[in-house]
Amino acid sequence: MSTVKKSVAVLGLGSMGAALADALMVAGHEVSVWNRTPGRAEGLVARGARRAGSVAEAVTAGEIVLVCILDYGDIGPLLEQQGGGRAALQGRVVVNVTNGSPEEARAMAERVTALGAAYLDGGIMAVPEIIGSPDAFVLYSGSREAFEAHRSVLDAFARSVYLGEDPGLAPLHDLALLSGMYGMFGGFLHAAALVRSAGGSVAEFTTTLLQPWLGAMAGSLPAMAAQVDSGDYSVTGSPLAMQVAHDSIGEVSRAQGVSPELFAPLFALMERRVADGHGSEGLAGLVELVHPR
Amino acid sequence: MSTVKKSVAVLGLGSMGAALADALMVAGHEVSVWNRTPGRAEGLVARGARRAGSVAEAVTAGEIVLVCILDYGDIGPLLEQQGGGRAALQGRVVVNVTNGSPEEARAMAERVTALGAAYLDGGIMAVPEIIGSPDAFVLYSGSREAFEAHRSVLDAFARSVYLGEDPGLAPLHDLALLSGMYGMFGGFLHAAALVRSAGGSVAEFTTTLLQPWLGAMAGSLPAMAAQVDSGDYSVTGSPLAMQVAHDSIGEVSRAQGVSPELFAPLFALMERRVADGHGSEGLAGLVELVHPR
Ligand SMILES: NC(=O)c1ccc[n+]([C@@H]2O[C@H](COP(=O)([O-])OP(=O)(O)OC[C@H]3O[C@@H](n4cnc5c(N)ncnc54)[C@H](OP(=O)(O)O)[C@@H]3O)[C@@H](O)[C@H]2O)c1
Ligand SMILES: NC(=O)c1ccc[n+]([C@@H]2O[C@H](COP(=O)([O-])OP(=O)(O)OC[C@H]3O[C@@H](n4cnc5c(N)ncnc54)[C@H](OP(=O)(O)O)[C@@H]3O)[C@@H](O)[C@H]2O)c1
Repeated sequence: MSTVKKSVAVLGLGSMGAALADALMVAGHEVSVWNRTPGRAEGLVARGARRAGSVAEAVTAGEIVLVCILDYGDIGPLLEQQGGGRAALQGRVVVNVTNGSPEEARAMAERVTALGAAYLDGGIMAVPEIIGSPDAFVLYSGSREAFEAHRSVLDAFARSVYLGEDPGLAPLHDLALLSGMYGMFGGFLHAAALVRSAGGSVAEFTTTLLQPWLGAMAGSLPAMAAQVDSGDYSVTGSPLAMQVAHDSIGEVSRAQGVSPELFAPLFALMERRVADGHGSEGLAGLVELVHPR
Repeated sequence: MSTVKKSVAVLGLGSMGAALADALMVAGHEVSVWNRTPGRAEGLVARGARRAGSVAEAVTAGEIVLVCILDYGDIGPLLEQQGGGRAALQGRVVVNVTNGSPEEARAMAERVTALGAAYLDGGIMAVPEIIGSPDAFVLYSGSREAFEAHRSVLDAFARSVYLGEDPGLAPLHDLALLSGMYGMFGGFLHAAALVRSAGGSVAEFTTTLLQPWLGAMAGSLPAMAAQVDSGDYSVTGSPLAMQVAHDSIGEVSRAQGVSPELFAPLFALMERRVADGHGSEGLAGLVELVHPR
């Protein structure tokens, strides 16, 4: 599949911005690069990127303006003052992959739209090392038209997932995925502490037992998700009342000198849900306590 | 591969015990069954199991005595009084897959050994529906000799994993895996709450984004495990100090009406670890707070 070559300006050449710029060049696009500390552009320029002497020069050179800097707060001034404002941005597409909150993304969308450009917010679900590989994906929200027009360019980074017109959707889903990851890592830490307390090899436990187990258990997430969507939490297998009958994890953890603090809040929610009369239902119903309708 | 056919007594025909008895019959073993409430044996007897009129009769019929009842506390009396004690158990192997704590398993091993039988404790990492399928596995600890002599029989249930002579190892690793699962489910619940708060489909989020994301992130668990084993938590990618710079998950959750309580303890540990001077290290180092050496 041949892709139309486009001109892209990359603002911010930290570890992520540089990886994105490289992926664009590999895909054959014309890449102009700018970084506050100019030295960081050297490697990219050596690999064929065009050096922009100012933000305004970069913006003028790119049909797409990709922003990847550390903090949201610095982007507005960057585009409005250094970037040449409305005159320079008119008709372009700003793709902002700087991490922020849904509110920040919405405010940025207004600001960028006021400058005459279309706005896409991006949430990168990858580390720089896997940009361009099939494991990576990037969430986008904002202008659907801009996404559809430039999707083939964005696909150079990773699998592109468009979530909707509300610019806040990408950061929100980004944080949702991160919270899912932190949950898994928290579970790993507790499990690792238990295994270590018994003198076992955590590496062996993780590869031979935990990874296959989590893989199998992840298979039940779609059914739990469907329950959250429907609000029907009835189960046949393992009702909450049975799961809280003994706090074996807490008891054994304490006996092993392992703090139960990572597991305790979930257990407390399970107990609350049972006390609320939902003991015959499943774990997915806890979402009603975490996010009361 | 042909397997030597053996005689197995199954005590306890609840949903798990019945599934185990069926798997043994499918594998061609001679199965005697006993249940406190006799009616529960009907189906198995119809499918070819031998009905034992008493625990003693079952024990006498089985070279292997598989125990799967609800509570540990009831097993001792069952074997000592109803089971015919030393006379009946001498030379047999008791495989106890009832869920309990490491301490309970060790005490049971002593009790069973005093009756002249070998002891294996089992932790079943499966629901009854997947017994006999390749996704299931069972952890064993206790007599290595018994495990090796009867492994081919045990393999009828699931992949058999032997952990060591200490009978407490199977329940400990069982609980470690469960805590890992609960961590993942807790992360799912928080993520689902965030997505629901934004009006999104949790089912679509889970299958298109969360499952692939968790699959990719699970790939970093072996490296974290190796760090726990070595105590060297240095990282290049994503140091703790960077991860706690903003509590974006907490802030955005609160703004969305989502309680941060499932995520908060991990974040608090990250902050503590940074305050302790480990901000340049990775997440795996939190194990030192969860399980102080
Ligand atoms: N790295 C990852 O794994 C990863 C993953 C997903 C998302 N992200 C997101 O990607 C963004 C960039 O991260 P990174 O890893 O590339 O960070 P980084 O390596 O620390 O680079 C930070 C970049 O931001 C620039 N910058 C900071 N303040 C600026 C300002 N006031 N004006 C102009 N430029 C400024 C820096 O310029 P100087 O060179 O002049 O300091 C540098 O180019 C962040 O929002 C991050 O959350 C990163
Ligand atoms: N189901 C699962 O998904 C699963 C997964 C892993 C491990 N396990 C473990 O497997 C064990 C059995 O679970 P299950 O799901 O089969 O439970 P279940 O369906 O509730 O059956 C309980 C069994 O225990 C028997 N029992 C209870 N108290 C007894 C006593 N004092 N004397 C003799 N028998 C007694 C019951 O006999 P009656 O019929 O007479 O009441 C019944 O056969 C538990 O330790 C459980 O934790 C279960």
